[in-house]
Amino acid sequence: MLGVTDGPESRLFESMRYATFGGGKRFRPFLVVQSAKLFSVQKAAALRVAAAVELVHCYSLVHDDLPAMDDDDLRRGKPTVHKQFDEATAILAGDALLTLAFEVLADHRTHENAEVRTELVSALAKAAGGRGMVGGQMLDLAAESVELDIGAITRLQRLKTGAIIAFSCEAGAILGRASMDARDALRGYAHDLGLAFQISDDLLDVEGTIEETGKAVGKDADAGKGTFVSILGVERARAQAKLLAAQAVEHLAMFEGAADLLRNAATFVVERRR
Amino acid sequence: MLGVTDGPESRLFESMRYATFGGGKRFRPFLVVQSAKLFSVQKAAALRVAAAVELVHCYSLVHDDLPAMDDDDLRRGKPTVHKQFDEATAILAGDALLTLAFEVLADHRTHENAEVRTELVSALAKAAGGRGMVGGQMLDLAAESVELDIGAITRLQRLKTGAIIAFSCEAGAILGRASMDARDALRGYAHDLGLAFQISDDLLDVEGTIEETGKAVGKDADAGKGTFVSILGVERARAQAKLLAAQAVEHLAMFEGAADLLRNAATFVVERRR
Repeated sequence: MLGVTDGPESRLFESMRYATFGGGKRFRPFLVVQSAKLFSVQKAAALRVAAAVELVHCYSLVHDDLPAMDDDDLRRGKPTVHKQFDEATAILAGDALLTLAFEVLADHRTHENAEVRTELVSALAKAAGGRGMVGGQMLDLAAESVELDIGAITRLQRLKTGAIIAFSCEAGAILGRASMDARDALRGYAHDLGLAFQISDDLLDVEGTIEETGKAVGKDADAGKGTFVSILGVERARAQAKLLAAQAVEHLAMFEGAADLLRNAATFVVERRR
Repeated sequence: MLGVTDGPESRLFESMRYATFGGGKRFRPFLVVQSAKLFSVQKAAALRVAAAVELVHCYSLVHDDLPAMDDDDLRRGKPTVHKQFDEATAILAGDALLTLAFEVLADHRTHENAEVRTELVSALAKAAGGRGMVGGQMLDLAAESVELDIGAITRLQRLKTGAIIAFSCEAGAILGRASMDARDALRGYAHDLGLAFQISDDLLDVEGTIEETGKAVGKDADAGKGTFVSILGVERARAQAKLLAAQAVEHLAMFEGAADLLRNAATFVVERRR
């Protein structure tokens, strides 16, 4: 999609590739592909939506890592984009990745039905925007100066990571024009999975090592930021993550064996070390 | 669209409103509305697309003004978003405005036909992304350290401002499902208009005052940045802008009297003082 160019903007494309192809768990693309499988969606279509979600995820990491935001030097074990390139390039790379996600979704190759494509654009925009991921990021910045209770942290995380995880699971249902029952089930799964994922992220920030996670650890505690772990403590946070993962699996009953990899994902989420 | 919230993210919404409702010429929305009129598009639909284009324009100004980019303190006679709020908020406000633009376009209220909506999303994403506006911005940053010839500057400006101006003019044709002839005519108009607009922008940076433009002037020359004016000189640049404006008008012949306001816009572009 991004070919080689000789002009000075080749640096932009290089930084976009650096941000996107630098590893990562590809957890959100996995959710898109697996949820799409439940409805026998063509793999090529699912992969395009998976790519769009990952582009949004990667853009959010590039901008979150900026000095004015979380000020991180390391991501996936490598220099962050503004360290490898420069701040201006990182801002523009993030902007271009976000924009590219919508270009990918709107393309006719994503789905032959334009209603499906606009529904995907609409759902991703809502999940990624001011009432979704970006709103959650804003709350997260505020969390360094305001003390949050468990309700506020839950709300923050539902926006910051939950909204895109929910989109990833629902995307398969949108592509497959699934029944409302199936969509509700996936939404319920995604909701519990997203929170479990975030609690395990907080646990890794406390218990993980830089080698495992590929990024700086202990940052939340250093910043005095309220997290699930700072409020619940390590043991109760871990128990809560396990409970949520089990709850997530419950939602998948109607899909029977077809949802086994999504069930495994719930286990992965609470046992992961990165 | 952005209601009042009590949570800390109200600051995000406040900064988005500040970035959007702070004045400006609304030149791109004007182009959308006027081009839509040529094809008897419903006004409500045209206004939604006009709003989406302005959201993208405003996001680009917020990010361009950041310290790591052009580092501007003043915009439309008021403090820039990162000055009025802070850098992190400005980054997130820009991200959310860009995302909102696609949400607005994908909404069924923009057009009852989903094919039209995806075409709008696709065209705006291409115009705004790495091969459009953001790519142009990247070239613009490079222009401070690399000497550009007139061809390179023309290319830079076609991407940086031309792509969104072209989208604004084509949007009416997309909404109105116009003939290819009509679209080609509008594309030709937009191409010449966009370059004339940029040359007049360069002239204002040299000749305008801070009171007229509402932003710092003389910045390009101070930065040693190549512009149409630095290469052609004031007189030849002005003559070139006038020539392009006249050329732009030529493209509109097939629309007869219905395009009179678009013809006026070409005159405005070269005579404006802000």
